[in-house]
Amino acid sequence: MTIDPVALTQDLIRCPSVTPADAGALGVLQAVLTDMGFACRRLVFEQEGTDPVDNLYARLGTAAPNFCFAGHTDVVPVGDAAAWTVDPFGAEITGGKLFGRGTADMKGAIAAFVAAVKSFLDRNGTPDGSISLLITGDEEGPSINGTTKVLDWMRAEGEVIDACLVGEPTNPRALGDMMKIGRRGSVTMTLTAYGAQGHVAYPHLADNPLPRLTRALTMLAESPLDEGTAHFQPSTLALTSIDVANPASNVIPAKGTARFNIRFNDLHTPKSLEAHVRDVLEEVGGAWDLKVHVSGEAFLTPPGALVATVAGAVKAVTGRDPELSTSGGTSDARFIKNFCPVVEFGLVGQTMHKVDEHVDVADIRTLAAIYDRVLADFFGKVAA
Amino acid sequence: MTIDPVALTQDLIRCPSVTPADAGALGVLQAVLTDMGFACRRLVFEQEGTDPVDNLYARLGTAAPNFCFAGHTDVVPVGDAAAWTVDPFGAEITGGKLFGRGTADMKGAIAAFVAAVKSFLDRNGTPDGSISLLITGDEEGPSINGTTKVLDWMRAEGEVIDACLVGEPTNPRALGDMMKIGRRGSVTMTLTAYGAQGHVAYPHLADNPLPRLTRALTMLAESPLDEGTAHFQPSTLALTSIDVANPASNVIPAKGTARFNIRFNDLHTPKSLEAHVRDVLEEVGGAWDLKVHVSGEAFLTPPGALVATVAGAVKAVTGRDPELSTSGGTSDARFIKNFCPVVEFGLVGQTMHKVDEHVDVADIRTLAAIYDRVLADFFGKVAA
Ligand SMILES: [Zn+2]
Ligand SMILES: [Zn+2]
Repeated sequence: MTIDPVALTQDLIRCPSVTPADAGALGVLQAVLTDMGFACRRLVFEQEGTDPVDNLYARLGTAAPNFCFAGHTDVVPVGDAAAWTVDPFGAEITGGKLFGRGTADMKGAIAAFVAAVKSFLDRNGTPDGSISLLITGDEEGPSINGTTKVLDWMRAEGEVIDACLVGEPTNPRALGDMMKIGRRGSVTMTLTAYGAQGHVAYPHLADNPLPRLTRALTMLAESPLDEGTAHFQPSTLALTSIDVANPASNVIPAKGTARFNIRFNDLHTPKSLEAHVRDVLEEVGGAWDLKVHVSGEAFLTPPGALVATVAGAVKAVTGRDPELSTSGGTSDARFIKNFCPVVEFGLVGQTMHKVDEHVDVADIRTLAAIYDRVLADFFGKVAA
Repeated sequence: MTIDPVALTQDLIRCPSVTPADAGALGVLQAVLTDMGFACRRLVFEQEGTDPVDNLYARLGTAAPNFCFAGHTDVVPVGDAAAWTVDPFGAEITGGKLFGRGTADMKGAIAAFVAAVKSFLDRNGTPDGSISLLITGDEEGPSINGTTKVLDWMRAEGEVIDACLVGEPTNPRALGDMMKIGRRGSVTMTLTAYGAQGHVAYPHLADNPLPRLTRALTMLAESPLDEGTAHFQPSTLALTSIDVANPASNVIPAKGTARFNIRFNDLHTPKSLEAHVRDVLEEVGGAWDLKVHVSGEAFLTPPGALVATVAGAVKAVTGRDPELSTSGGTSDARFIKNFCPVVEFGLVGQTMHKVDEHVDVADIRTLAAIYDRVLADFFGKVAA
């Protein structure tokens, strides 16, 4: 008995699991995995000030090596509901495309992996090692009660994973375009410039912090951080907000605050970036406060066995050599990289987070074939 | 019968005429002026969205030339009431100082002028010409229903003034320090930079307006507008607010807004300043919106008969040559200068708008003597 990854995707889409709601999605998955012999653990985490989130860790076998597939069943909100031409949770198939919130990001990939495991097992029997799934319900949200807490729990339980494939939609246009072997880091800084309030008619009696702030921000925004590295694009700094909220047009304010985000490659760390910013502030002069919030370090899984296995499977099934990229936003791979080599490959992401999110039905089946081949190569078994 | 300018100041202080309240202040004045033979007109103006304001125009005589004293009976709020060591409206005299909100700015000067007119008339009889007072209740407020509307009314009635002395507190430290022969202009501009929203991870798909905004603001704040002129300080530009209010640290905003105020001398007009700002915006590039609000043009009453009369009176009474200044904030002189030559001379402004506002009691009497001498010189009569 094979598993139809398209039907399973539809079952998952029909659960409106907008973060932090699970809406039955993990239950759908758990039922199928339990049938296949997986030991399933449901892990609800909560933390003060956050919503509790449901997660699933499922493992088949107890031996090493443990190949782990990681993903999330939560989805982003529908957005402009009236702009959708289909029911966002209807999982309708039209013209060879499966529509619905979460098809590309990333319920289709989860279903493909489950179908891949089934076909792999049907063909090869139980491998010398384990296959596991780490599925969270908090990737699109604050990512506090999701993968990072599951990994903490695994560490505490002595659960080891040896290689990880994250099913995020990595392909810009066609299945096989691109896989991700790392991600840029992300750090958000909040910068406050201080001065002394006064009347605009007597600027010499005040100390306006805003020209220093605009000067520092201009310097930060206009000086390139680097020119990129072998596997990374150049780092980028984006000003996201500047706020003074001074209602009086005749008053020089005492302070001004700005926020910016830096996406950085393996030439930088949050510490080195903070030092760079502080150098600029020192050059400009004046009193400053700088707060640094690290969302993730830059990381790279250098080309090696795992990268070769996934790239090889993509090539064998699609005929394409996937680009080894580190572009794009963050993903839960930033947490997993501390435990084992991790790469990302999934569906085509063109419509993710958008109205009328959809994937080609054929792509879901092709992705299942790729995942099956990854498992075969990893465990040294016969490919389909 | 002389009029005691100190007692009259006290009577005015005891009316808590915080804009737009009159609290009886104009009535106190009108009673004294009516006794002296002035024809008094009370003028209440209102405009949608503003508080109605009471004003007084009083004239003695009907012939030209008409010498006008201009001022305001409204005062700024008490501020931190607990920080006052006296009742702000008690008009207490301690250690030779008269305390109260509005003593310096500018009820003391109004009382001094009334006392000066009385002693002038007692000594010389009715002059060949007229003496008038234009007293508003809306100088410290929006200045919409005050002097500017009284002047409109005067123009409509065919009321002509030939020279005007505004009683604002012009002396930084001691009576006789400084008179004002003009004021810098003031213009407030609101600048919005437009771009295209996007995700910080994909800055090439967005168009961040903030680096353009900070660049333009830095250029504007750091390039001097001029080096001053014979009678004016250099023009100044003060950034007062920058506002984006983007709550998302991973989103590049579509726009950012800044506000700045320019205090400018007689080398500029609001039009020329707008052109300067637009040049900077063009150099920086991108899409902008610029809104310009003119609070007042720069103006100068060049040294001539009126300036010589007032400076001579100050010198004769105090022994000091007053500095001919154009510094400081705006005043109602900016409206009057369209009608006739106007200069400003009043009490010591050190404590104006502050807690424990006060003036030396002796200064009020000295100011009355100066004003008396101004009238004598203007009308070619005997000085006291
Ligand atoms: Zn995702
Ligand atoms: Zn005033």
